Amino acid sequence: MHIGLFDSGVGGLTVLKELKKYLPQAQYSYLGDTARLPYGNKAPETLKKYTAENIHFLEQLGVDSVVIACHSASSVSLTITQTHRGTPVYNVITPSCQQALHESKSQKIGVIATKATTKSAVYKSYINDLEPNAQVFSQACPLLVPLVEEGMIQDEITNLVLNRYLKPLINHGIDSLILACTHYPILEQPIAQICGPQIKLINPATSVAKNIIVSDDYDQSQQRIQIYLTDHAPHFIEHAKSLLGPGIDFEILYPTS
Amino acid sequence: MHIGLFDSGVGGLTVLKELKKYLPQAQYSYLGDTARLPYGNKAPETLKKYTAENIHFLEQLGVDSVVIACHSASSVSLTITQTHRGTPVYNVITPSCQQALHESKSQKIGVIATKATTKSAVYKSYINDLEPNAQVFSQACPLLVPLVEEGMIQDEITNLVLNRYLKPLINHGIDSLILACTHYPILEQPIAQICGPQIKLINPATSVAKNIIVSDDYDQSQQRIQIYLTDHAPHFIEHAKSLLGPGIDFEILYPTS
Repeated sequence: MHIGLFDSGVGGLTVLKELKKYLPQAQYSYLGDTARLPYGNKAPETLKKYTAENIHFLEQLGVDSVVIACHSASSVSLTITQTHRGTPVYNVITPSCQQALHESKSQKIGVIATKATTKSAVYKSYINDLEPNAQVFSQACPLLVPLVEEGMIQDEITNLVLNRYLKPLINHGIDSLILACTHYPILEQPIAQICGPQIKLINPATSVAKNIIVSDDYDQSQQRIQIYLTDHAPHFIEHAKSLLGPGIDFEILYPTS
Repeated sequence: MHIGLFDSGVGGLTVLKELKKYLPQAQYSYLGDTARLPYGNKAPETLKKYTAENIHFLEQLGVDSVVIACHSASSVSLTITQTHRGTPVYNVITPSCQQALHESKSQKIGVIATKATTKSAVYKSYINDLEPNAQVFSQACPLLVPLVEEGMIQDEITNLVLNRYLKPLINHGIDSLILACTHYPILEQPIAQICGPQIKLINPATSVAKNIIVSDDYDQSQQRIQIYLTDHAPHFIEHAKSLLGPGIDFEILYPTS
Protein backbone atom coordinates (compact mmCIF):
# COMPACT_ATOMS: atom_id res chain seq x y z
CA MET A 1 0.00 0.00 0.00
CA HIS A 2 1.46 3.30 -1.14
CA ILE A 3 -0.20 6.58 -0.04
CA GLY A 4 0.61 9.92 -1.69
CA LEU A 5 -0.05 13.25 0.03
CA PHE A 6 0.50 16.82 -1.01
CA ASP A 7 0.43 20.28 0.56
CA SER A 8 1.91 23.64 -0.36
CA GLY A 9 4.60 23.24 2.28
CA VAL A 10 5.49 21.39 5.43
CA GLY A 11 2.08 21.50 7.19
CA GLY A 12 0.64 18.42 5.52
CA LEU A 13 3.27 16.30 7.26
CA THR A 14 1.02 16.46 10.36
CA VAL A 15 -1.57 14.59 8.26
CA LEU A 16 1.06 12.08 7.18
CA LYS A 17 2.09 11.53 10.80
CA GLU A 18 -1.53 10.80 11.79
CA LEU A 19 -2.02 8.44 8.83
CA LYS A 20 1.13 6.58 9.83
CA LYS A 21 -0.36 5.95 13.27
CA TYR A 22 -3.33 4.18 11.66
CA LEU A 23 -1.48 2.58 8.75
CA PRO A 24 2.09 2.14 10.01
CA GLN A 25 3.08 -0.36 7.33
CA ALA A 26 2.08 1.69 4.29
CA GLN A 27 4.64 3.38 2.06
CA TYR A 28 4.33 7.19 1.96
CA SER A 29 5.26 9.77 -0.68
CA TYR A 30 4.74 13.46 0.09
CA LEU A 31 4.81 16.38 -2.32
CA GLY A 32 5.49 19.84 -0.84
CA ASP A 33 4.74 22.38 -3.57
CA THR A 34 7.16 24.87 -2.05
CA ALA A 35 7.72 26.66 -5.38
CA ARG A 36 4.12 27.87 -5.32
CA LEU A 37 3.35 28.30 -1.61
CA PRO A 38 1.36 29.71 0.06
CA TYR A 39 -1.89 28.23 -1.31
CA GLY A 40 -4.11 30.25 1.08
CA ASN A 41 -4.15 33.36 -1.11
CA LYS A 42 -4.50 31.70 -4.55
CA ALA A 43 -7.59 31.97 -6.75
CA PRO A 44 -9.83 28.84 -6.81
CA GLU A 45 -9.12 28.18 -10.52
CA THR A 46 -5.37 28.36 -9.89
CA LEU A 47 -5.65 25.98 -6.93
CA LYS A 48 -7.70 23.52 -9.01
CA LYS A 49 -4.94 23.50 -11.63
CA TYR A 50 -2.20 22.97 -9.01
CA THR A 51 -4.26 20.20 -7.37
CA ALA A 52 -4.70 18.35 -10.67
CA GLU A 53 -0.95 18.64 -11.39
CA ASN A 54 0.00 17.44 -7.92
CA ILE A 55 -2.38 14.47 -8.06
CA HIS A 56 -0.91 13.57 -11.47
CA PHE A 57 2.63 13.78 -10.06
CA LEU A 58 1.80 11.44 -7.17
CA GLU A 59 0.00 9.01 -9.45
CA GLN A 60 3.13 8.82 -11.64
CA LEU A 61 4.97 7.60 -8.53
CA GLY A 62 2.57 4.66 -8.37
CA VAL A 63 0.55 5.59 -5.28
CA ASP A 64 -2.74 3.78 -4.79
CA SER A 65 -4.39 6.58 -2.75
CA VAL A 66 -3.99 10.35 -2.82
CA VAL A 67 -4.64 12.54 0.23
CA ILE A 68 -5.00 16.29 -0.29
CA ALA A 69 -3.29 17.26 2.97
CA CYS A 70 -4.06 20.97 2.62
CA HIS A 71 -7.27 22.74 3.61
CA SER A 72 -7.05 25.37 0.83
CA ALA A 73 -6.52 22.78 -1.92
CA SER A 74 -9.16 20.52 -0.33
CA SER A 75 -11.70 23.35 -0.37
CA VAL A 76 -11.71 23.41 -4.20
CA SER A 77 -11.68 19.61 -4.50
CA LEU A 78 -14.62 18.38 -2.40
CA THR A 79 -16.19 16.51 -5.31
CA ILE A 80 -13.01 14.77 -6.52
CA THR A 81 -13.22 11.22 -5.17
CA GLN A 82 -10.97 9.51 -7.70
CA THR A 83 -8.55 10.23 -10.52
CA HIS A 84 -9.17 9.48 -14.20
CA ARG A 85 -7.40 6.18 -13.67
CA GLY A 86 -9.55 5.33 -10.67
CA THR A 87 -7.12 6.05 -7.80
CA PRO A 88 -9.12 7.17 -4.73
CA VAL A 89 -8.59 10.82 -3.73
CA TYR A 90 -9.32 12.00 -0.19
CA ASN A 91 -9.57 15.56 1.06
CA VAL A 92 -9.28 16.71 4.70
CA ILE A 93 -12.61 18.56 4.80
CA THR A 94 -15.49 16.16 4.03
CA PRO A 95 -14.54 13.40 6.52
CA SER A 96 -13.99 15.90 9.35
CA CYS A 97 -17.39 17.55 8.73
CA GLN A 98 -19.07 14.13 8.74
CA GLN A 99 -17.31 13.18 11.95
CA ALA A 100 -18.16 16.50 13.62
CA LEU A 101 -21.86 16.02 12.84
CA HIS A 102 -21.68 12.41 14.03
CA GLU A 103 -20.07 13.39 17.35
CA SER A 104 -22.22 16.46 18.02
CA LYS A 105 -25.40 16.28 20.08
CA SER A 106 -26.18 20.00 20.13
CA GLN A 107 -25.54 20.33 16.37
CA LYS A 108 -23.48 23.39 17.26
CA ILE A 109 -20.11 22.92 15.62
CA GLY A 110 -17.04 25.14 15.93
CA VAL A 111 -14.41 25.52 13.21
CA ILE A 112 -11.02 27.13 13.77
CA ALA A 113 -8.97 27.82 10.65
CA THR A 114 -6.77 30.31 8.81
CA LYS A 115 -8.26 33.57 7.56
CA ALA A 116 -8.50 32.25 3.99
CA THR A 117 -10.32 29.04 4.97
CA THR A 118 -12.65 30.95 7.29
CA LYS A 119 -13.47 33.49 4.60
CA SER A 120 -14.22 30.72 2.07
CA ALA A 121 -16.86 29.34 4.51
CA VAL A 122 -16.28 25.91 2.97
CA TYR A 123 -16.76 24.02 6.26
CA LYS A 124 -20.00 25.80 7.14
CA SER A 125 -21.31 25.30 3.63
CA TYR A 126 -20.50 21.58 3.50
CA ILE A 127 -21.81 20.90 7.03
CA ASN A 128 -25.08 22.63 6.14
CA ASP A 129 -25.29 20.60 2.92
CA LEU A 130 -25.24 17.49 5.12
CA GLU A 131 -27.40 18.89 7.92
CA PRO A 132 -29.27 22.16 7.24
CA ASN A 133 -30.17 22.59 10.93
CA ALA A 134 -26.60 22.46 12.20
CA GLN A 135 -25.15 25.75 13.44
CA VAL A 136 -21.54 26.39 12.48
CA PHE A 137 -19.42 28.96 14.33
CA SER A 138 -16.15 29.81 12.62
CA GLN A 139 -13.12 31.58 14.06
CA ALA A 140 -10.05 32.68 12.09
CA CYS A 141 -6.88 32.14 14.16
CA PRO A 142 -4.02 33.80 12.23
CA LEU A 143 -1.61 33.79 15.19
CA LEU A 144 -1.63 30.02 15.72
CA VAL A 145 0.59 28.99 12.80
CA PRO A 146 3.40 31.42 13.81
CA LEU A 147 3.11 30.26 17.45
CA VAL A 148 3.40 26.60 16.39
CA GLU A 149 6.31 27.45 14.09
CA GLU A 150 8.03 29.09 17.07
CA GLY A 151 7.54 25.89 19.06
CA MET A 152 5.45 27.78 21.65
CA ILE A 153 3.12 24.84 22.28
CA GLN A 154 2.97 24.89 26.09
CA ASP A 155 3.27 28.61 26.70
CA GLU A 156 1.46 31.32 28.63
CA ILE A 157 1.26 33.48 25.48
CA THR A 158 -0.26 30.66 23.41
CA ASN A 159 -2.79 29.98 26.16
CA LEU A 160 -3.85 33.65 26.16
CA VAL A 161 -4.19 33.65 22.37
CA LEU A 162 -6.16 30.38 22.39
CA ASN A 163 -8.44 31.67 25.13
CA ARG A 164 -9.26 34.74 23.08
CA TYR A 165 -10.04 32.69 19.96
CA LEU A 166 -11.95 29.88 21.69
CA LYS A 167 -14.04 31.68 24.33
CA PRO A 168 -16.61 33.05 21.81
CA LEU A 169 -17.08 29.56 20.34
CA ILE A 170 -17.44 28.01 23.81
CA ASN A 171 -19.98 30.70 24.71
CA HIS A 172 -22.01 29.70 21.63
CA GLY A 173 -22.39 26.24 23.18
CA ILE A 174 -20.44 24.18 20.62
CA ASP A 175 -19.86 20.53 21.51
CA SER A 176 -17.49 19.67 18.67
CA LEU A 177 -14.61 21.67 17.26
CA ILE A 178 -12.85 21.03 13.95
CA LEU A 179 -9.11 21.88 13.99
CA ALA A 180 -9.25 22.96 10.34
CA CYS A 181 -5.61 23.79 9.66
CA THR A 182 -2.78 21.29 9.39
CA HIS A 183 -0.79 22.99 12.19
CA TYR A 184 -3.60 23.13 14.77
CA PRO A 185 -3.63 19.48 15.94
CA ILE A 186 -0.15 20.18 17.36
CA LEU A 187 -1.99 22.46 19.84
CA GLU A 188 -4.56 19.77 20.67
CA GLN A 189 -3.49 19.54 24.32
CA PRO A 190 -3.73 23.26 25.24
CA ILE A 191 -6.94 23.53 23.17
CA ALA A 192 -8.44 20.56 25.07
CA GLN A 193 -7.51 22.19 28.39
CA ILE A 194 -9.46 25.33 27.47
CA CYS A 195 -12.41 23.56 25.84
CA GLY A 196 -12.86 20.93 28.55
CA PRO A 197 -14.14 17.35 28.12
CA GLN A 198 -17.61 18.38 26.92
CA ILE A 199 -16.22 19.60 23.56
CA LYS A 200 -14.99 16.90 21.21
CA LEU A 201 -11.95 17.95 19.16
CA ILE A 202 -11.92 16.76 15.55
CA ASN A 203 -8.51 16.28 13.95
CA PRO A 204 -9.15 16.16 10.16
CA ALA A 205 -6.10 13.94 9.67
CA THR A 206 -7.66 11.31 11.97
CA SER A 207 -10.98 11.61 10.12
CA VAL A 208 -9.21 10.97 6.80
CA ALA A 209 -7.17 8.10 8.21
CA LYS A 210 -10.35 6.31 9.30
CA ASN A 211 -11.80 6.67 5.80
CA ILE A 212 -8.92 5.37 3.72
CA ILE A 213 -9.59 2.11 1.92
CA VAL A 214 -6.86 -0.21 3.12
CA SER A 215 -5.14 -2.65 0.81
CA ASP A 216 -3.09 -5.61 1.99
CA ASP A 217 -0.37 -5.03 -0.55
CA TYR A 218 2.54 -3.83 1.59
CA ASP A 219 6.06 -3.32 0.29
CA GLN A 220 8.23 -3.69 3.37
CA SER A 221 11.33 -2.56 1.47
CA GLN A 222 10.44 1.13 1.46
CA GLN A 223 9.65 2.43 4.93
CA ARG A 224 11.49 5.72 4.59
CA ILE A 225 9.15 8.57 3.62
CA GLN A 226 9.97 10.21 0.29
CA ILE A 227 9.41 13.97 0.44
CA TYR A 228 9.43 15.71 -2.96
CA LEU A 229 9.84 19.49 -2.97
CA THR A 230 9.22 21.68 -6.02
CA ASP A 231 11.74 24.26 -4.75
CA HIS A 232 14.46 24.57 -2.13
CA ALA A 233 12.77 25.83 1.04
CA PRO A 234 14.78 27.22 3.95
CA HIS A 235 14.30 25.37 7.25
CA PHE A 236 12.13 22.67 5.60
CA ILE A 237 14.15 19.82 7.08
CA GLU A 238 14.13 21.22 10.63
CA HIS A 239 10.38 21.93 10.40
CA ALA A 240 9.75 18.45 8.99
CA LYS A 241 11.73 16.85 11.82
CA SER A 242 9.86 18.87 14.41
CA LEU A 243 6.41 18.07 12.90
CA LEU A 244 7.08 14.36 12.31
CA GLY A 245 8.88 13.84 15.59
CA PRO A 246 11.61 11.32 16.31
CA GLY A 247 11.56 7.85 14.78
CA ILE A 248 10.09 8.80 11.40
CA ASP A 249 12.74 8.53 8.73
CA PHE A 250 12.51 10.64 5.57
CA GLU A 251 14.53 11.81 2.61
CA ILE A 252 14.13 15.00 0.53
CA LEU A 253 14.02 14.72 -3.26
CA TYR A 254 13.68 17.35 -5.99
CA PRO A 255 11.70 16.25 -9.07
CA THR A 256 13.60 17.16 -12.22
CA SER A 257 10.57 17.81 -14.45
CA MET B 1 10.31 66.09 -6.44
CA HIS B 2 9.16 62.54 -7.15
CA ILE B 3 10.23 59.69 -4.83
CA GLY B 4 9.84 56.04 -5.81
CA LEU B 5 9.79 53.24 -3.24
CA PHE B 6 9.46 49.49 -3.53
CA ASP B 7 8.88 46.53 -1.25
CA SER B 8 7.65 42.97 -1.78
CA GLY B 9 4.27 43.88 -0.36
CA VAL B 10 2.46 46.37 1.83
CA GLY B 11 5.10 46.83 4.58
CA GLY B 12 7.15 49.50 2.79
CA LEU B 13 4.18 51.86 3.02
CA THR B 14 5.29 52.53 6.63
CA VAL B 15 8.50 53.96 5.11
CA LEU B 16 6.46 56.03 2.66
CA LYS B 17 4.33 57.38 5.52
CA GLU B 18 7.45 58.47 7.42
CA LEU B 19 8.99 60.09 4.32
CA LYS B 20 5.76 61.99 3.75
CA LYS B 21 6.08 63.49 7.25
CA TYR B 22 9.48 64.94 6.33
CA LEU B 23 8.75 65.72 2.68
CA PRO B 24 4.99 66.32 2.57
CA GLN B 25 5.02 68.06 -0.80
CA ALA B 26 6.87 65.39 -2.77
CA GLN B 27 5.10 63.11 -5.24
CA TYR B 28 5.27 59.40 -4.32
CA SER B 29 5.13 56.24 -6.43
CA TYR B 30 5.23 52.86 -4.70
CA LEU B 31 5.83 49.45 -6.24
CA GLY B 32 4.56 46.42 -4.30
CA ASP B 33 6.06 43.33 -5.94
CA THR B 34 3.16 41.17 -4.75
CA ALA B 35 3.66 38.63 -7.55
CA ARG B 36 7.00 37.60 -6.06
CA LEU B 37 6.49 38.10 -2.30
CA PRO B 38 7.77 37.21 0.22
CA TYR B 39 11.35 38.45 -0.34
CA GLY B 40 12.58 37.15 3.04
CA ASN B 41 13.21 33.61 1.80
CA LYS B 42 14.71 34.41 -1.61
CA ALA B 43 18.35 33.77 -2.56
CA PRO B 44 20.61 36.88 -2.64
CA GLU B 45 21.17 36.60 -6.41
CA THR B 46 17.41 36.44 -7.02
CA LEU B 47 16.83 39.47 -4.78
CA LYS B 48 19.53 41.45 -6.59
CA LYS B 49 17.77 40.72 -9.88
CA TYR B 50 14.36 41.76 -8.51
CA THR B 51 15.88 44.91 -7.00
CA ALA B 52 17.44 45.93 -10.32
CA GLU B 53 14.14 45.33 -12.12
CA ASN B 54 12.15 47.28 -9.53
CA ILE B 55 14.57 50.23 -9.60
CA HIS B 56 14.33 50.23 -13.41
CA PHE B 57 10.51 50.22 -13.23
CA LEU B 58 10.46 53.21 -10.86
CA GLU B 59 13.01 55.09 -12.95
CA GLN B 60 10.78 54.63 -16.01
CA LEU B 61 8.08 56.47 -14.06
CA GLY B 62 10.40 59.46 -13.83
CA VAL B 63 11.26 59.39 -10.12
CA ASP B 64 14.30 61.39 -9.02
CA SER B 65 15.06 59.24 -5.95
CA VAL B 66 14.56 55.52 -5.26
CA VAL B 67 14.09 54.16 -1.74
CA ILE B 68 14.45 50.41 -1.21
CA ALA B 69 11.74 50.18 1.45
CA CYS B 70 12.41 46.53 2.25
CA HIS B 71 15.05 45.17 4.63
CA SER B 72 15.63 41.96 2.64
CA ALA B 73 16.15 43.81 -0.67
CA SER B 74 18.22 46.48 1.11
CA SER B 75 20.51 43.82 2.57
CA VAL B 76 21.75 42.84 -0.91
CA SER B 77 22.00 46.46 -2.09
CA LEU B 78 24.14 48.26 0.50
CA THR B 79 26.65 49.44 -2.10
CA ILE B 80 24.10 50.72 -4.65
CA THR B 81 24.00 54.49 -4.19
CA GLN B 82 22.77 55.47 -7.65
CA THR B 83 21.39 53.99 -10.85
CA HIS B 84 23.21 53.86 -14.19
CA ARG B 85 21.49 57.11 -15.06
CA GLY B 86 22.56 58.74 -11.79
CA THR B 87 19.31 58.65 -9.82
CA PRO B 88 20.15 58.37 -6.09
CA VAL B 89 19.19 55.04 -4.48
CA TYR B 90 18.66 54.77 -0.70
CA ASN B 91 18.34 51.62 1.36
CA VAL B 92 16.86 51.36 4.86
CA ILE B 93 19.89 49.72 6.47
CA THR B 94 22.94 51.96 6.15
CA PRO B 95 21.35 55.21 7.47
CA SER B 96 19.81 53.44 10.47
CA CYS B 97 23.15 51.83 11.40
CA GLN B 98 24.89 55.21 11.15
CA GLN B 99 22.20 56.82 13.29
CA ALA B 100 22.34 54.02 15.89
CA LEU B 101 26.11 54.45 16.26
CA HIS B 102 25.69 58.21 16.43
CA GLU B 103 23.07 57.99 19.20
CA SER B 104 24.76 55.25 21.22
CA LYS B 105 27.09 56.04 24.11
CA SER B 106 27.67 52.47 25.29
CA GLN B 107 28.27 51.24 21.71
CA LYS B 108 25.91 48.41 22.57
CA ILE B 109 23.27 48.31 19.87
CA GLY B 110 20.18 46.12 19.67
CA VAL B 111 18.57 45.02 16.40
CA ILE B 112 15.11 43.44 16.20
CA ALA B 113 14.16 41.95 12.83
CA THR B 114 12.59 39.03 11.02
CA LYS B 115 14.26 35.61 11.14
CA ALA B 116 15.70 36.07 7.63
CA THR B 117 17.24 39.49 8.37
CA THR B 118 18.60 38.27 11.71
CA LYS B 119 20.14 35.20 10.10
CA SER B 120 21.79 37.32 7.39
CA ALA B 121 23.54 39.35 10.14
CA VAL B 122 23.65 42.29 7.74
CA TYR B 123 23.10 44.94 10.46
CA LYS B 124 25.80 43.54 12.73
CA SER B 125 28.21 43.24 9.84
CA TYR B 126 27.62 46.79 8.57
CA ILE B 127 27.76 48.34 12.07
CA ASN B 128 31.06 46.57 12.73
CA ASP B 129 32.39 47.78 9.38
CA LEU B 130 31.75 51.32 10.63
CA GLU B 131 32.82 50.71 14.23
CA PRO B 132 34.68 47.46 14.99
CA ASN B 133 34.32 47.94 18.76
CA ALA B 134 30.54 48.23 18.73
CA GLN B 135 28.64 45.29 20.18
CA VAL B 136 25.50 44.30 18.27
CA PHE B 137 22.80 42.15 19.88
CA SER B 138 20.22 40.79 17.45
CA GLN B 139 16.83 39.28 18.19
CA ALA B 140 14.52 37.63 15.66
CA CYS B 141 10.87 38.52 16.39
CA PRO B 142 8.75 36.34 14.08
CA LEU B 143 5.50 36.94 16.00
CA LEU B 144 5.49 40.72 15.61
CA VAL B 145 4.38 40.93 11.97
CA PRO B 146 1.32 38.70 12.54
CA LEU B 147 0.44 40.71 15.69
CA VAL B 148 0.65 44.00 13.77
CA GLU B 149 -1.37 42.51 10.92
CA GLU B 150 -4.04 41.56 13.47
CA GLY B 151 -4.10 45.15 14.70
CA MET B 152 -3.03 44.02 18.20
CA ILE B 153 -0.92 47.12 18.85
CA GLN B 154 -2.01 47.97 22.40
CA ASP B 155 -2.63 44.49 23.73
CA GLU B 156 -1.67 42.39 26.74
CA ILE B 157 -0.55 39.55 24.42
CA THR B 158 1.68 41.86 22.34
CA ASN B 159 3.21 43.27 25.53
CA LEU B 160 4.07 39.76 26.75
CA VAL B 161 5.60 38.87 23.38
CA LEU B 162 7.60 42.14 23.28
CA ASN B 163 8.80 41.61 26.83
CA ARG B 164 10.11 38.19 25.94
CA TYR B 165 11.95 39.48 22.85
CA LEU B 166 13.32 42.68 24.41
CA LYS B 167 14.37 41.62 27.93
CA PRO B 168 17.55 39.80 26.78
CA LEU B 169 18.61 42.89 24.77
CA ILE B 170 17.90 45.22 27.69
CA ASN B 171 19.90 42.91 29.97
CA HIS B 172 22.85 43.25 27.57
CA GLY B 173 22.83 46.99 28.30
CA ILE B 174 21.90 48.30 24.83
CA ASP B 175 21.22 52.03 24.61
CA SER B 176 19.94 52.12 21.03
CA LEU B 177 17.58 49.71 19.28
CA ILE B 178 17.03 49.48 15.52
CA LEU B 179 13.46 48.52 14.54
CA ALA B 180 14.73 46.62 11.52
CA CYS B 181 11.48 45.50 9.90
CA THR B 182 8.99 47.74 8.13
CA HIS B 183 6.13 46.67 10.44
CA TYR B 184 7.93 47.27 13.75
CA PRO B 185 7.73 51.09 13.98
CA ILE B 186 3.95 50.60 14.31
CA LEU B 187 4.79 49.04 17.71
CA GLU B 188 7.07 51.95 18.68
CA GLN B 189 4.88 53.00 21.62
CA PRO B 190 4.66 49.62 23.42
CA ILE B 191 8.35 48.99 22.62
CA ALA B 192 9.26 52.38 24.15
CA GLN B 193 7.25 51.53 27.28
CA ILE B 194 9.26 48.36 27.81
CA CYS B 195 12.66 49.83 26.86
CA GLY B 196 12.30 53.04 28.86
CA PRO B 197 13.79 56.46 28.04
CA GLN B 198 17.43 55.32 28.32
CA ILE B 199 17.14 53.28 25.10
CA LYS B 200 16.85 55.30 21.89
CA LEU B 201 14.60 53.66 19.28
CA ILE B 202 15.80 53.97 15.67
CA ASN B 203 13.12 53.90 12.98
CA PRO B 204 14.97 53.18 9.69
CA ALA B 205 12.34 55.11 7.73
CA THR B 206 13.17 58.25 9.72
CA SER B 207 16.89 57.66 9.18
CA VAL B 208 16.33 57.42 5.40
CA ALA B 209 14.07 60.48 5.35
CA LYS B 210 16.79 62.59 6.97
CA ASN B 211 19.30 61.45 4.30
CA ILE B 212 17.29 62.12 1.15
CA ILE B 213 18.65 64.86 -1.07
CA VAL B 214 15.77 67.30 -1.40
CA SER B 215 15.01 69.04 -4.66
CA ASP B 216 12.79 72.11 -4.95
CA ASP B 217 11.05 70.84 -8.04
CA TYR B 218 7.54 70.06 -6.75
CA ASP B 219 4.62 69.09 -8.95
CA GLN B 220 1.55 70.10 -6.92
CA SER B 221 -0.79 68.44 -9.41
CA GLN B 222 -0.09 64.90 -8.25
CA GLN B 223 -0.52 64.53 -4.49
CA ARG B 224 -2.29 61.18 -4.62
CA ILE B 225 0.11 58.27 -4.07
CA GLN B 226 0.36 55.86 -6.98
CA ILE B 227 0.69 52.26 -5.78
CA TYR B 228 1.69 49.78 -8.49
CA LEU B 229 1.17 46.07 -7.74
CA THR B 230 2.66 43.25 -9.80
CA ASP B 231 -0.23 40.93 -8.85
CA HIS B 232 -3.65 41.18 -7.27
CA ALA B 233 -3.16 40.75 -3.52
CA PRO B 234 -6.07 40.01 -1.20
CA HIS B 235 -6.61 42.63 1.54
CA PHE B 236 -3.91 44.93 0.11
CA ILE B 237 -6.19 47.97 0.13
CA GLU B 238 -7.38 47.46 3.72
CA HIS B 239 -3.79 46.85 4.89
CA ALA B 240 -2.60 49.93 3.00
CA LYS B 241 -5.33 52.07 4.57
CA SER B 242 -4.48 50.80 8.02
CA LEU B 243 -0.70 51.36 7.57
CA LEU B 244 -1.00 54.79 5.94
CA GLY B 245 -3.74 56.00 8.24
CA PRO B 246 -6.45 58.52 7.41
CA GLY B 247 -5.76 61.53 5.19
CA ILE B 248 -3.30 59.85 2.81
CA ASP B 249 -4.95 59.38 -0.57
CA PHE B 250 -3.78 56.58 -2.89
CA GLU B 251 -4.77 54.66 -5.98
CA ILE B 252 -3.85 51.08 -6.99
CA LEU B 253 -2.50 50.47 -10.50
CA TYR B 254 -1.39 47.29 -12.27
CA PRO B 255 1.52 47.71 -14.69
CA THR B 256 0.72 45.99 -17.98
CA SER B 257 4.26 44.92 -18.89
